[in-house]
Order: sequence, then C-alpha cells, then structure tokens
Amino acid sequence: MKTEKITVVKLGGNIINDENSLNNFLFSFSSLKGKKILVHGGGKIATEISLKLGIETQMLNGRRVTDERSIDVITMVYAGLLNKKIVVKLQQYGCDAIGLCGADGNLIPAQKRSVIPVDYGFVGDPVSENINVALLNSLLGNNFSPVIAPVTHESGTLLNTNADTIASVLACALAKENEVQLIYCFEKNGVLLDSDDDESLISSLSKDHLQQLINEGKIHSGMLPKINAALNAQKNGVQRVVIGNAKQLTALADGSPACTTLH
Amino acid sequence: MKTEKITVVKLGGNIINDENSLNNFLFSFSSLKGKKILVHGGGKIATEISLKLGIETQMLNGRRVTDERSIDVITMVYAGLLNKKIVVKLQQYGCDAIGLCGADGNLIPAQKRSVIPVDYGFVGDPVSENINVALLNSLLGNNFSPVIAPVTHESGTLLNTNADTIASVLACALAKENEVQLIYCFEKNGVLLDSDDDESLISSLSKDHLQQLINEGKIHSGMLPKINAALNAQKNGVQRVVIGNAKQLTALADGSPACTTLH
Repeated sequence: MKTEKITVVKLGGNIINDENSLNNFLFSFSSLKGKKILVHGGGKIATEISLKLGIETQMLNGRRVTDERSIDVITMVYAGLLNKKIVVKLQQYGCDAIGLCGADGNLIPAQKRSVIPVDYGFVGDPVSENINVALLNSLLGNNFSPVIAPVTHESGTLLNTNADTIASVLACALAKENEVQLIYCFEKNGVLLDSDDDESLISSLSKDHLQQLINEGKIHSGMLPKINAALNAQKNGVQRVVIGNAKQLTALADGSPACTTLH
Repeated sequence: MKTEKITVVKLGGNIINDENSLNNFLFSFSSLKGKKILVHGGGKIATEISLKLGIETQMLNGRRVTDERSIDVITMVYAGLLNKKIVVKLQQYGCDAIGLCGADGNLIPAQKRSVIPVDYGFVGDPVSENINVALLNSLLGNNFSPVIAPVTHESGTLLNTNADTIASVLACALAKENEVQLIYCFEKNGVLLDSDDDESLISSLSKDHLQQLINEGKIHSGMLPKINAALNAQKNGVQRVVIGNAKQLTALADGSPACTTLH
C-alpha cells in the first residue's frame, strides 16, 4: 500500500552557483507541501577551490578523475559548505532541513567504480538495494526534510557520486512504500532540442523517443545522464518524473508548467 | 526519571590532526557500549586551508576573528571534511554514525556574539534552552551515534562555536531525562599543573579548587575554556564529567584511569 506522498527534488549545479537564484529556489522548496527531500549537485565552486589549493583537475577520456585530494575538496564543498548553506537557509525559511551525505547513517552505500579499463579514482555508484530507506522514512515521519549531498561511501572511503543518480535511486527506494514524485530542477525549462531555445522543449519523453533522438543526433550528450536517471526512476515505480526550471519549482510540484515529463 | 545512559565524548583538535591517532580513537569510540555522541573540534587543517586560499587569520585581543570567508572555510572543514571522515571511519568500524552540525534539524540554535566592544565576526554561543534534545533522543533511540561538528546557526547564518561548549551544553540538555557522562578527550592525561609533566595531573577538580589554582597562577589559561565547560556540565546535572587522554577512551568510559574528574 502506498502510504505517503513524497516529493524528491534534485537541484542542479548552475542554480547553486548564484546566491539569489539559490535562495529563491530554497524559498520555493520550503513552501512545498508535504514530505520532501532535496538532493543537490556541486556547482563550480569545488573546481574554483581546487584551483586555489593547487589541485589540478585530471581528465581521462573527457571525464574527471577524482584523486585523494579531489575527494577531500568534494567532501568539503558538497557535504560541508553547500549542504550547510542550504540547510541554514531552509531553516531560516521555516523548513526543518537536516543535511546528510551518503555515509551518514549508512544512507547510501555505494560501490567504487572498477579501475579497469580506466581508474577514475574515488567515484562510486549507489547500491540501490541497500539504500537506508528506514532512515529517510524516520526523518520524514518526524517532519524533517533531508538535504542530501552527492557523496557516498564504501568500506571507510568517501566516494564522489552523480547527484542525478542519487535522486533517482532514493526516489525508487522510497517508491516501494510511498507515492513519490521526482523533480529535476535546473536552469532550463526541460529537455530542449536546441539548448539555446526554450521553445524547443520536449514536453514528453519516453525511452524509445530518447533513442530515436540520440540516433538523429538531436540530444545534447551532457543531458543524457540526467535523462537516463529520470527514465530509470520512471521505470521503477516513481509515479511522476519531470525535468524543469528551478524558477518554477512550485508549479512543477503542483501541476505541469512547461517542462519535460518522462513516460 | 533518568531513563537512559548516554556517553557524550568531546574529541580535541590535536588528535584529529594525526590520522593514526584519530583512527585508533574512533575504533575505541565505536566499541563503547550503549548510546553515545561524539562532538569534535577543528584541528589545524582549517588554518592550513585558509592560508592556501589566501585568507589571513585576523586576531583581535589574542582571539581569532571569523569573517565571512573564514566561516566558509570552517563550515567546509569542520562540518564537511572532518565530520564526514569521522563518520565514514565509524561506519567502517560498525558504529552507525550520523554527522550533523548545529544547523541540521535546528539542533543547536545559537546567538551571535555581540559586536560590542569587539566584533569577532561569525561566532556564536549555543542557546542552551533551545537545544533540539528530541532530535538527539530520536537518533539515539534508533541506535545512531550523532557526530557533531562545532558549527551552529542563527537566522540563516552559520556560526563558529567552541566544541567544548557544545559538548557541555548537549550533555546538560540530555541530562534532564537521561543519565549522562561527559568525557573530554585530548592528548594529555587530564588537567596538568605542568603541561609537560604527566605526573603533575590534578585527579580531582572543583570550582573552588580551580579558583585557587588560577589565583596561584598554576593553571594554563588555554585550559580554562575546557575546564569551565566541564565544570558547567557537572553543576548542571551531568552525572560524571572527566578530562583525559584520548588513547584511554575505553578506560575513561568504563572507570577511572589517570584523568581529571570534575566535582
């Protein structure tokens, strides 16, 4: 039996970079009715701080390598600075936020990526079946709103983990016993055919439709991880999955403004 | 009626600076029986990172000023890096740790220090009567061990707060309904008359005795905040308060090795 309605919101990095946009978003989040969870990304501040600390970003095959010093910066910035700045603002706005990373209360056990064929370092993928849903339900039941930083863990090691994936995995785990909607928020109105043209919004997207768009070269590859995470949630019991503009969070939660709905 | 026995442990900064000492301590903490809370200090890494980021430490009347960039570093390092490194190690050792700062779940509401006569910046003192004891009891009741970073909040602002004070205030708040022991751990065996001589240990210390030692110039002034926080807890219902060596945590929790007991 689906007992509770829960809204899981993922906030993308670009909104976090701008204090005004972030605070407007957090004010909207705080006013959402019912049980809610916020998963946040990282933003560019980790890169800025890495640069200042003299840590060079290593890239392999176009992807970032998270070495030991980088996972320290990610932990500091994501699970420390950003997570607590979000929490303290939500508290000010009357939302009883509680900030966690995936190591806290063993919330998100993960598996470090294989070092073969390429060692990307301290990067991990959540082990879906081991998510600590009881902790989330307990916090939500006590009217707390968990705020989750994209850091997970395995065997005493902290791991950098994609925030879109975390939002999807948490929503799926909660959907086993609750009615869950998952809202991906970022600076665009949804999935666009032309990333510079809000009018090119794809209002409805299925797995087959996505494959067709990929084949036609019409999808920006940078959007694929988010779309796949969203589709995965939709396939695994999450009742409603949308990708939309952070400025329209309230409308995204209550109805369907201009946005992309996954089917 | 005192319902539960709870051990509150404060870990001092110097132990945190050394990975081996820290891990040995955390292994001991994880093996403590019963409900337990860990409050940790900061250590020197915040100063090191501030230096690398080009943030100069301002001092006024011998005390550090926490400006906006400094509270960011403190939040990153204390509530992010150190808190999560401690949590992930405790998880590895089988202790279900959950890391929080004082903003999370409104755990430790604080009051920013007056800017008169001297503005020390983003520094705050806990508002004892507003501690969210219900959150601590709920987490402890679910067999989590809260790990608390020394950052508190007021009106949307994060504040740097003395960890010895936080440990004392939390222990006092819990002592209203529980049997609480408070253990201050650092690199010495307790309060020493000569900080280089472990044989000069003061095994028992009362408020009157402390005043006498201060008058005689026999107490190192750097120890006074810790001693006063400890005495305050002892005067406010905490059943047992000791200051001792982090290497002897298990013995400190179970009995009375060489240490300072507050009376």
